[in-house]
Amino acid sequence: MLWFIGLGISGISELSERTRNIIKNAEMVYLESFTSPISETEKEELESICNGEFKIAKRWLVEDGNEIIDNAKEQETVLISYGDPYIATTHLELKTRATNDKIETKTIHSSSIVSSLIGEVGLHYYKVGKVLTIMNDPKSMITPYNTIFDNLLNKTHSVILLEYNEDKSFFLQPQDALSLLLDVEKTQNRKVISQETFAIVASRIGRDDQKITSGRITNLIKKEFGESPHSIIITGKLHFTESDAIKVITECLDEPIDNSADVKSISEQMIEKYVPMVREALEEIRPHYEDLKEYENILINAKLYIDDAENFLKEGKKEYAVLSIGYADGLVDALRIAKGFDPKM
Amino acid sequence: MLWFIGLGISGISELSERTRNIIKNAEMVYLESFTSPISETEKEELESICNGEFKIAKRWLVEDGNEIIDNAKEQETVLISYGDPYIATTHLELKTRATNDKIETKTIHSSSIVSSLIGEVGLHYYKVGKVLTIMNDPKSMITPYNTIFDNLLNKTHSVILLEYNEDKSFFLQPQDALSLLLDVEKTQNRKVISQETFAIVASRIGRDDQKITSGRITNLIKKEFGESPHSIIITGKLHFTESDAIKVITECLDEPIDNSADVKSISEQMIEKYVPMVREALEEIRPHYEDLKEYENILINAKLYIDDAENFLKEGKKEYAVLSIGYADGLVDALRIAKGFDPKM
Repeated sequence: MLWFIGLGISGISELSERTRNIIKNAEMVYLESFTSPISETEKEELESICNGEFKIAKRWLVEDGNEIIDNAKEQETVLISYGDPYIATTHLELKTRATNDKIETKTIHSSSIVSSLIGEVGLHYYKVGKVLTIMNDPKSMITPYNTIFDNLLNKTHSVILLEYNEDKSFFLQPQDALSLLLDVEKTQNRKVISQETFAIVASRIGRDDQKITSGRITNLIKKEFGESPHSIIITGKLHFTESDAIKVITECLDEPIDNSADVKSISEQMIEKYVPMVREALEEIRPHYEDLKEYENILINAKLYIDDAENFLKEGKKEYAVLSIGYADGLVDALRIAKGFDPKM
Repeated sequence: MLWFIGLGISGISELSERTRNIIKNAEMVYLESFTSPISETEKEELESICNGEFKIAKRWLVEDGNEIIDNAKEQETVLISYGDPYIATTHLELKTRATNDKIETKTIHSSSIVSSLIGEVGLHYYKVGKVLTIMNDPKSMITPYNTIFDNLLNKTHSVILLEYNEDKSFFLQPQDALSLLLDVEKTQNRKVISQETFAIVASRIGRDDQKITSGRITNLIKKEFGESPHSIIITGKLHFTESDAIKVITECLDEPIDNSADVKSISEQMIEKYVPMVREALEEIRPHYEDLKEYENILINAKLYIDDAENFLKEGKKEYAVLSIGYADGLVDALRIAKGFDPKM
């Protein structure tokens, strides 16, 4: 028998009697502490509950899994983890293996950092986009940057978990994560993140010393947030009840803003660049085709498709907008090339 | 003082001693049962814990909020809800109002259906896209359909919550929700959902009679899933450990497939349609410009940009692919219009 038990975000005091008894009566209890740090006090408290053997499980032990599986074949075995047990994919894989080995598994779900966090900072759950993790490695920043970009294009909030390395007792600090985001912006340059971006730093959610700070990155980056764990949220478009909540229930350094307002999709950026350029190229070539009947329709069509591009963009039909401006540019450039002008693509 | 207490997904037996005492000692306890059904037994059990007054809170009472706020000004007041308290936006708004009124608020987070669900069905948490709700109203289906489409384009999983109406004791059945999805596909016709789409129906997650069934919609729609609540997941691209988990820990009617494989963005659909069309149009017009030196570069460029469109698409640069094929089409059509041929846009 293998139990997966979530400790939740508030620790042992929030365990039910039933769950305590499962831990107490198990013959083998593993506590994994590599997905999130667990304090010495909590470790000792948990150990003191156990009648059976108690052991800290390092990452390799859970990833390898053989010892846990072997124990679970013979004994009531428990694997305890911070938050909800299945936020970590290692635990899911262990469950699949156990089931394959005909070991019965049961789960005690608990509060998870991701779902608790969103409510604690005052945001709506259904407006959260893809969750991401930032590691302390500038080379790994393209994926997080792209995810925030996609989330902002969808107007959704980005929940950012920060690297935790148990062996090195390392927890990425929010200021460093925000700096990494500002740095990747410099190379990617898609205007996703700036000093003016509004963000929320949630510290020690679920603990008595929980602290939530919100504001522009330029101000957040100067703050001290105290002991880990921390998470960050880059907000998307805010409902007014979300703005109100942020102002009231967080330490709010700056007025919340809509971070998604200025984020432009590649299509929008193309239309902004090409529409004036193609219009100008069209007017430049027009006099060279005056009174040439067979070219009149080309000039008319070019003008119509430039207008279409702008209108499609307004209607949110980005792909049609890009197709139209590309087409208009092609019509104009054919006329230009034929007269020895440089094409404008 | 206003407490927001989450009952979690497994009910009263999973409440900690500490939380029970808060409920026991409160002067006023509200139990809201409009976000998810709570059984009579559970209501009675909760009531039996309370020393103070116990009251069922209908939606209007929480949305209006005045009674709760007034009580919380004078008394230890508790609002209990299923799952995690802040998944419901009404509760968040109440918290903001209470804080504005200088009422201290505290929260007991708990397991929420969304985070528990994902692990229980064997999926990775960080691969979940935007969460959506399906209501029993065909006219409201465009947004859910678009969200699933966007999630599949991002290869992510779509967690679908189903309408619950406390006053009518109505819980949308999974079969009906799946039928609504098949119906909206008929009108939208973007090949997002079909009888062959792989889905997971999660029933009564966290309860002893929890049941998870997975398979193609054509087979799921014939099943009976028993008592509510149910949720549905339309899976995106599956990691092999996710497929393995689904096969092992759910009642798996069919081999899991990648639902995202055949979902095409509008850009991809455009490239598929326009590339062969523009190639053909180019070959048709080419003989009419043989030996006309000033047009040679137009023909060469048209060919290059058609190839570019295909290559950009392969590299995932969809916008550039569309811009290129639009441009190539414009070059070719200018040549066609000038010779009295029909344009191909």
